Amino acid sequence: MSEWFELKEAEFNTALTTRDVNKMRDLFNTVPTVDLAEFADNVKDPSTLTFIFKVVKSELTADFFTELNDETQEKLLRVFSDDQLVELINKSYTDDIVDVLEDMPANLVNRALKFIPKEKRESVNKLLNFKEDTASSIMTTEYFELNGETTVEDAMKQIREKGKQAETIYTVFLRDEKRNLTGTVDLDDLIFADPKQTLNQIKNKEFIYTKVGTDQEEVARIFKKYDLNALAVVNNEHKLVGVITVDDIMDVMEKESSEDIARLNKVADMETPYLETKISKLVIKCVPWIIILMILQLFSTMILSSFQVVIAQVAVLSVFTPLLMDAGGNSGGQTTTIIVRSLALGEFDKKDIKKVIWKEFRVAVCIAGIVAIFAFGWIMFEIAVGIVKFEKVGTYHDWTWTGKTLISLLVASTLFVTMIVSRMVGCLLPFGAKLIKQDPAVLCGPITTTIVDIVTLLTYFLLWQYAFSPILERIATL
Amino acid sequence: MSEWFELKEAEFNTALTTRDVNKMRDLFNTVPTVDLAEFADNVKDPSTLTFIFKVVKSELTADFFTELNDETQEKLLRVFSDDQLVELINKSYTDDIVDVLEDMPANLVNRALKFIPKEKRESVNKLLNFKEDTASSIMTTEYFELNGETTVEDAMKQIREKGKQAETIYTVFLRDEKRNLTGTVDLDDLIFADPKQTLNQIKNKEFIYTKVGTDQEEVARIFKKYDLNALAVVNNEHKLVGVITVDDIMDVMEKESSEDIARLNKVADMETPYLETKISKLVIKCVPWIIILMILQLFSTMILSSFQVVIAQVAVLSVFTPLLMDAGGNSGGQTTTIIVRSLALGEFDKKDIKKVIWKEFRVAVCIAGIVAIFAFGWIMFEIAVGIVKFEKVGTYHDWTWTGKTLISLLVASTLFVTMIVSRMVGCLLPFGAKLIKQDPAVLCGPITTTIVDIVTLLTYFLLWQYAFSPILERIATL
Repeated sequence: MSEWFELKEAEFNTALTTRDVNKMRDLFNTVPTVDLAEFADNVKDPSTLTFIFKVVKSELTADFFTELNDETQEKLLRVFSDDQLVELINKSYTDDIVDVLEDMPANLVNRALKFIPKEKRESVNKLLNFKEDTASSIMTTEYFELNGETTVEDAMKQIREKGKQAETIYTVFLRDEKRNLTGTVDLDDLIFADPKQTLNQIKNKEFIYTKVGTDQEEVARIFKKYDLNALAVVNNEHKLVGVITVDDIMDVMEKESSEDIARLNKVADMETPYLETKISKLVIKCVPWIIILMILQLFSTMILSSFQVVIAQVAVLSVFTPLLMDAGGNSGGQTTTIIVRSLALGEFDKKDIKKVIWKEFRVAVCIAGIVAIFAFGWIMFEIAVGIVKFEKVGTYHDWTWTGKTLISLLVASTLFVTMIVSRMVGCLLPFGAKLIKQDPAVLCGPITTTIVDIVTLLTYFLLWQYAFSPILERIATL
Repeated sequence: MSEWFELKEAEFNTALTTRDVNKMRDLFNTVPTVDLAEFADNVKDPSTLTFIFKVVKSELTADFFTELNDETQEKLLRVFSDDQLVELINKSYTDDIVDVLEDMPANLVNRALKFIPKEKRESVNKLLNFKEDTASSIMTTEYFELNGETTVEDAMKQIREKGKQAETIYTVFLRDEKRNLTGTVDLDDLIFADPKQTLNQIKNKEFIYTKVGTDQEEVARIFKKYDLNALAVVNNEHKLVGVITVDDIMDVMEKESSEDIARLNKVADMETPYLETKISKLVIKCVPWIIILMILQLFSTMILSSFQVVIAQVAVLSVFTPLLMDAGGNSGGQTTTIIVRSLALGEFDKKDIKKVIWKEFRVAVCIAGIVAIFAFGWIMFEIAVGIVKFEKVGTYHDWTWTGKTLISLLVASTLFVTMIVSRMVGCLLPFGAKLIKQDPAVLCGPITTTIVDIVTLLTYFLLWQYAFSPILERIATL
């Protein structure tokens, strides 16, 4: 809760308990609407909630309602009279109505739709049916559009008269006689311009717009790149159908990066804040991933199981398997993270794939070399100081320093292979996912780990069986 | 590169090769400045680069220069004449100059500082020395401030006259006689207002500002929460010292989430786009993490090494160690991700710690129960279909179904403990990091994994040695 609010909380609660409308109104004047909504979200009692709603100044009710969380909105909608519902709808922007309705149960949606005036209902219905996560799903239909031949003076007059209905007047959209979108004018340019100029004369040289079906992540990139306040959305006939404002884009940016973070870390995205999320929901967000990852491990379990005899004979080999598998997993994860992030930020496209692979290969060889050399030294050190002991069990009872060095070399060689494979797989999979139009963040991590685990274990045990073990035996018999 | 640009690329290259200034100017008129900068970033030859710079319309050079990447900026600065430098500086906003200078070598900075006019130099120096990642480091000192008693009519006049120097006029900042910040007025409210009203009468009821030292992540949260276009930054005397605009906030949001993603996935944040990053830099971003994680594994290596005799006797135990350790790591990672993300989004603060721990504990017990039961069934299945085989090695030669069931039970019991410990550690560490003012995203992952690995391996082998193995022996002798 914000500091503006904390100062007043005691007064607030008193006024609320005594139902002191005047005192409440006074306080409301000094508290930002969004903080008020945050307070209301914590009110459990529906009658107190409706009381608060009634006290909110009439011109702010729509704002206030929009800022409430889904649960509180639903509570209020259930107790609203028809009149209250009609009033609220008339005051709200279309995209806000859609945002609210999207998360409501069907019976409430139908009740609300009944009260939405016909001309607005069409927009609401259209927006409700638009594809999720596209430009159309975040646009508003209340924008300010003028003919490009209008003079600056006239434009200002029209803005004063009709601009209040628009969600933003900071960008004015221009159309020609055929209602095609032809450009945009920023409000500051309007203000600095000569009153006699036409809008076409002062319009932005950059004519930037997007199409209804564009992915919202791409829309966010356009906003960021061109530092926009608002962006036009056109249909296939190049007619303006809606406008996206920068505040919606900040929500998109946060949502998309939350999703990427969750997916890269093998947990489903939390749509609600942690403290508001039910325990059952948290469990459902986490358990499936753990179980899927456990099932995917069946390959490494199978390989380990089939080398049981070797492990029983040379138990020290089992000491290094987690180290090898983890190093591979971490390295693959690094690559996947870098590539997924770059793809999300639009840094490269499918056509860059060859460049990326060649670059990754060189990076992989460098990393593999450094890591293998370090690991050799590190394991020799672990052996020297006794972190790794060679017990007198199994086939080899007497471990000479030659044998111990060979084991370190075996681990280092396996790591060299693991590092290269993990980076190549970790970089190829996100591109593969993109090619088959799947989200690269979801499955690349687990699949990379699975593949790398298989390669690592097979390399490790086969290198031992067919290279290092024979060498060791030959040395022993010399 | 954008579609606007792609259409013209061929024409562009011809005009460039023939040094056709008029043709270039024509083309520049239709291409957004930011796309032009992107094109210039790919030009290697310095003389072509200066040619492009000269062709850019005089009123756009500052914009164009700001959009170039560090490398290209440096190239240009090196070949600029003193006159060119002075002109560029005069046209640029203070915060953009600072952004450029921050990444330049010291000799270039000093040369540039010499040419910055005295009154601007002070701001530049101040901004250069402000603490990184705070409100002060992203603010601009070109804002538009008026006395609150000014009338709307008069304000509009002053905006027209002096507003062009400000980075934004969409928010006008109000001060009283003592130059204290007293509020803000949005440009649209100014336009809709009665010309005779004073600014104080129409100012925003929400008076939102921030202090110079506030963390930029917190600033981004304020923007998002209150849907701002610009935010006032005040010093300790409550005087306005700068303004942050929404376009800078989008950069902050992207940078912060990139950092979180990188840290949570054990790789250093790439500050430059992948294809622009040198191979040596990519190696440096990745190798240290792999090596640190390898060193941290010394504890699990030590534990595994000390149970070598047990493994040699009951080799099948080693089949399940990676599965157990991975499940713990994944589960701890999930919790850390959720908690770090919630902390970053400001969903809860240190004082919520008890609530979070109690919630996490209940979630952990549920997850542990479900996962343990699933794992028992899954391992019985793996044994039944032969994915896990019980070879005739070591102490127990004849594995009866009782013995096999006991092994599954051992794995399931260990998982139960692992799941609870991993979630509790994964949730406590981020709070701990926050308490000692460290970034929770950096070390929590690796430390959680290390602790969970130790607990898991000890639980697994000790449960076997002191519970399951004695039970198995007693059953065998019955």
